[in-house]
Amino acid sequence: MERVDYLSDERKRAQFDVDAMKYVWAGSRHAFEVSDRISKLVASDPAFRKDDRTMLPRKELFKNTIRKATYAWKRIIELRLSEEEAAKLRFYVDEPAFTDLHWGMFIPAIKGQGTDEQHQKWLPFAYKMQIIGCYAQTELGHGSNVQGLETTATFNPKTDEFILHSPTLTSSKWWPGGLGKVSTHAVVYARLITDGKDHGVHGFIVQLRNLEDHTPLPGITLGDIGTKFGNGAYNTMDNGVLRFDHVRIPRDQMLMRVSQVTREGKYKQSDVPRQLVYGTMVYVRQTIVADASCALSRAVCIATRYSAVRRQFGSQNGGPENQVINYKTQQSRLFPLLASAYAFRFVGEWLKWLYTDVTQKLQANDFSTLPEVHACTAGLKSLTTSVTADGIEECRKLCGGHGYLCSSGLPELFTVYVPACTYEGDNIVLLLQVARFLMKTASQLGTGRQPVGTIAYMGRIERLMQCCSDVQNAEDWLKPSVVLEAFEARAARMSVACARNLSKFANPEEGFAELSADLVEAAIAHCQLIVVSKFIEKLQQDIPGKGVKKQLEMLCSVYYLFLLHKHQGDFIATSCITPKQASLANDQLRALYSQVRPNAIALVDAFNYTDHFLGSILGRYDGNVYPKLYEAAWKDPLNESDIPDGYHKYIRPLLKQQLRAARL
Amino acid sequence: MERVDYLSDERKRAQFDVDAMKYVWAGSRHAFEVSDRISKLVASDPAFRKDDRTMLPRKELFKNTIRKATYAWKRIIELRLSEEEAAKLRFYVDEPAFTDLHWGMFIPAIKGQGTDEQHQKWLPFAYKMQIIGCYAQTELGHGSNVQGLETTATFNPKTDEFILHSPTLTSSKWWPGGLGKVSTHAVVYARLITDGKDHGVHGFIVQLRNLEDHTPLPGITLGDIGTKFGNGAYNTMDNGVLRFDHVRIPRDQMLMRVSQVTREGKYKQSDVPRQLVYGTMVYVRQTIVADASCALSRAVCIATRYSAVRRQFGSQNGGPENQVINYKTQQSRLFPLLASAYAFRFVGEWLKWLYTDVTQKLQANDFSTLPEVHACTAGLKSLTTSVTADGIEECRKLCGGHGYLCSSGLPELFTVYVPACTYEGDNIVLLLQVARFLMKTASQLGTGRQPVGTIAYMGRIERLMQCCSDVQNAEDWLKPSVVLEAFEARAARMSVACARNLSKFANPEEGFAELSADLVEAAIAHCQLIVVSKFIEKLQQDIPGKGVKKQLEMLCSVYYLFLLHKHQGDFIATSCITPKQASLANDQLRALYSQVRPNAIALVDAFNYTDHFLGSILGRYDGNVYPKLYEAAWKDPLNESDIPDGYHKYIRPLLKQQLRAARL
Repeated sequence: MERVDYLSDERKRAQFDVDAMKYVWAGSRHAFEVSDRISKLVASDPAFRKDDRTMLPRKELFKNTIRKATYAWKRIIELRLSEEEAAKLRFYVDEPAFTDLHWGMFIPAIKGQGTDEQHQKWLPFAYKMQIIGCYAQTELGHGSNVQGLETTATFNPKTDEFILHSPTLTSSKWWPGGLGKVSTHAVVYARLITDGKDHGVHGFIVQLRNLEDHTPLPGITLGDIGTKFGNGAYNTMDNGVLRFDHVRIPRDQMLMRVSQVTREGKYKQSDVPRQLVYGTMVYVRQTIVADASCALSRAVCIATRYSAVRRQFGSQNGGPENQVINYKTQQSRLFPLLASAYAFRFVGEWLKWLYTDVTQKLQANDFSTLPEVHACTAGLKSLTTSVTADGIEECRKLCGGHGYLCSSGLPELFTVYVPACTYEGDNIVLLLQVARFLMKTASQLGTGRQPVGTIAYMGRIERLMQCCSDVQNAEDWLKPSVVLEAFEARAARMSVACARNLSKFANPEEGFAELSADLVEAAIAHCQLIVVSKFIEKLQQDIPGKGVKKQLEMLCSVYYLFLLHKHQGDFIATSCITPKQASLANDQLRALYSQVRPNAIALVDAFNYTDHFLGSILGRYDGNVYPKLYEAAWKDPLNESDIPDGYHKYIRPLLKQQLRAARL
Repeated sequence: MERVDYLSDERKRAQFDVDAMKYVWAGSRHAFEVSDRISKLVASDPAFRKDDRTMLPRKELFKNTIRKATYAWKRIIELRLSEEEAAKLRFYVDEPAFTDLHWGMFIPAIKGQGTDEQHQKWLPFAYKMQIIGCYAQTELGHGSNVQGLETTATFNPKTDEFILHSPTLTSSKWWPGGLGKVSTHAVVYARLITDGKDHGVHGFIVQLRNLEDHTPLPGITLGDIGTKFGNGAYNTMDNGVLRFDHVRIPRDQMLMRVSQVTREGKYKQSDVPRQLVYGTMVYVRQTIVADASCALSRAVCIATRYSAVRRQFGSQNGGPENQVINYKTQQSRLFPLLASAYAFRFVGEWLKWLYTDVTQKLQANDFSTLPEVHACTAGLKSLTTSVTADGIEECRKLCGGHGYLCSSGLPELFTVYVPACTYEGDNIVLLLQVARFLMKTASQLGTGRQPVGTIAYMGRIERLMQCCSDVQNAEDWLKPSVVLEAFEARAARMSVACARNLSKFANPEEGFAELSADLVEAAIAHCQLIVVSKFIEKLQQDIPGKGVKKQLEMLCSVYYLFLLHKHQGDFIATSCITPKQASLANDQLRALYSQVRPNAIALVDAFNYTDHFLGSILGRYDGNVYPKLYEAAWKDPLNESDIPDGYHKYIRPLLKQQLRAARL
């Protein structure tokens, strides 16, 4: 049977080579081929079905996730998948599970913070999943402020052991994924205490459950912290609570790469520089930015396809109504998100390079770029996750009422994604860190210290404080140099304005607190500049494929002009551009939307997502939305019978005016 | 046992009479007393418990809702509650149910569109709930474009009947609440066809289910459309699908107040003016605005209380950490939402007056203010629901990680609320209607037609196009006249700019489509002006109670200065204010946050919400958050056993390296 493609006309309109764009999106032809093969492997295996996920009660949902995660591991072994392929497989299974924490946090923590002996002892078990681990840092009372954690690990020199203890209710470990029901081990963060002295927070490898029968070990209380936001979503994960009642572990289970406790109970630093941990941080945040582009592109793919399928208003002489994707209001909300997905993809790619670069520098004991790298990754994590969370919800709204159905896939996508705004650094706290770095940079200008990397533009501060954009007509806004200067001037002037206001305070910390909302705005301006400049840099590369580069240039312009319009207050108030130039930018943006329109479907096809991965009836590749929506409705548990449970007990007595006698 | 109030110190800091503020919030002392009594009645009745709602599987959840709704009706009868009290009771039960549609849409539709005979025949059954009705308008293929509905009602003069039919899949009724499983009747909207002629969409009373056994009547297919966004949330409602296969109903079941079909099949208009239906529309939208202030205030109450409980960073010498509500970044996100909740409350109050006013005018055949009233209510519906949906999610984020737990109450509040952005007019479509009205008003300036009501300011267009704000220092921004002029000038100039750009197009419709994103921005500026001016008007009234008026003045200033800062691009680009003045506004806003701070808890206490209604551990009145969070976790179904379901089948074979043999 031939399958109808209701979007084939849309696909024919594309003005570029979609396959070539797929390689660009994936990062390389090789990466595309691995992704393509593994995603199809997952999609074609009924064991990985996920269309019932939003309807399952918690226990069934969780059991099913355990099944899938275990089965995925079985397939990884059977098919002898490489590490790259295995990671891709877990990614396309697309269901938060204990394995995420085991591979993504437990093993890296041991690798990063453990000694060679610890690696040799623990990693072989972990690699074979003979133990399952998680990462127990956050507590009921402390998240952002890691230094405020309350769990204690007190060294007992008599027995050569640490005693782990939860001295208060708020010291209960709370949130760690995989902790509640599955993990047998954890890297636990606790205040190290030797001889009555508190050395701050350190990591310890702790066994939680008996490996024979899975019962919690003596002194350990374990549980799940309860239902979380969304149907399906993160409820597949056993985010857990953990309390210690004087639990003893051997001394060699403290992660001792950077600091150590000797047999005698002496605390000392090793030769390994503390800064090495920053490498891991850059790595994790790079992953988060890559995930942002992935989540946002999924939502955009769904909303774009359904906007081409859906028609509303504007029927001429009884003909079909207008596709909603043709409306400028739809375009002005959707296309900037499409452009953002690409922008985040490329800045994520650049972060991958940055990780390699900073790792090399760290190994050569060069820590000079660390503050800049730290600020840049913190800022990009914050910016991309905030935009993505809001963007997914915007895509849901762009699908009208049907976006509210779980079968649209968007509710779950949103609720699975949105914790990224909070974990690995609350997004506002991170922006304040960026702001601190900006203020420090501003204060050092003129001292001979030349700012480097993403903050290098501040070295040209004199020019940036004076320059005025010379845009004369709308097309001038397509020139990268013009755009970069405007974004640099805006960011620089906002930083300088904050620095000037700060200098009016006798107590700088008080000033920082008082002005923090303005500092956050300056930090956002700086981060947006980074994304814009990395997109522009990407376009200076050679990009093969018919029309591909032109499409990317178009998206890049949509991205920065949308930002410029949204934040025109910043640009105009700081006199970087005139109101007239802002208006020209808006004209150019509108013109670009018309250029994106015929390519929109192909631009989301380039993400190469299978229908399985998208998990959305509205976003189906073939556009066959309405019959499938109709079909899916009947699978709801409520439709198992025509007459609902409760009819005889409640509805009938109500209708028959017999409520007085009814037991309710 | 005495209960500890962890927020008592906060409450002592309030600089105003909280009880007096409660009356202001409720609208009157009477309204407060009814609300207070009924909310406590609901809260103290275990039959209305709702803390398990987010954990129940769909069928159990739904059955439980039927029970509660039926029990609520029983109590209404037993206690002989007045209509006002009954409505309050349903409100405080706080669970979407078929009764919402029965009382809120089915009965009003019959009252508004039915003849006297139809009232006499149907309303007595409906008032006693001997029949349960819903409102079947939206279809699978059509929501916003009501004129595009496809269901047909064809008159058959031979039998004096209409034949209701669903000619296409997309003509299936889809979304109506209460339709899927409970309603016995519906007001169905269908294209009226007589003698082959299509007269457009009309309403019909249709019986759907057998009153004896609840089975769907012949030719009628009924079902639920499936799981929706969120845990609990709107899944308590049987949003339904309905298909007709040539279903016959008597002619007298067409709602014939405005147009009629005679025995011979002649279509004719009655003497009743069509415009009367607008009264209902104003009524419904007024309700939606009131609901917005309610939903937003709930979220703000939760986030404010938890922000005072939660401490993070800033411990001095081992003392307690800083309450997060003391951070300017928290204040700058939270307090504008607090101010918005109050602003929406007062604009909702004013809309109630507007409804009375317009009803009187309509009855006197005065339709002159209808376009203005329509634009104003459409705009306010759009503005308040969008801000509220985003605001609830922002409040959730302001609670850090714990806001992601269902026990915080915020996930469900968000998912129950967010459809308000789509139903009763998609928010963007509504803003375009406002924009159309603005463009019409602008085009008629100088023709002698004087704009009235909320658009009256456009009558002073010459002054508004020229005026410059004379703000010299930050305090000047506290003067209402200064603020009003700036907001009027901004709205007027954005409208005029759009009108000028429109005039460049040969085809005005094409221009409107091309510029629609800018038109939406102009419409928002107009709507914000309405809310600001109604808040200011409210403050010109006599408001009793120590310090109450001063608090409201403070909140009003926070509201408009926050808007001014957020949209400073509009104000500066149109030269209504200078960058320096914008910066002064921001300084004043920061100073106001410090004034709100000591009163914050009392300002949310004034909403007078019970802990039952709030449904949030984070928002508990007594601030006893952490022990209760900990306690609640153990109620999750996943904690019924230490060893999770699936351990023996999946986890153990995994750990024991026996996956090859395991059946997965």
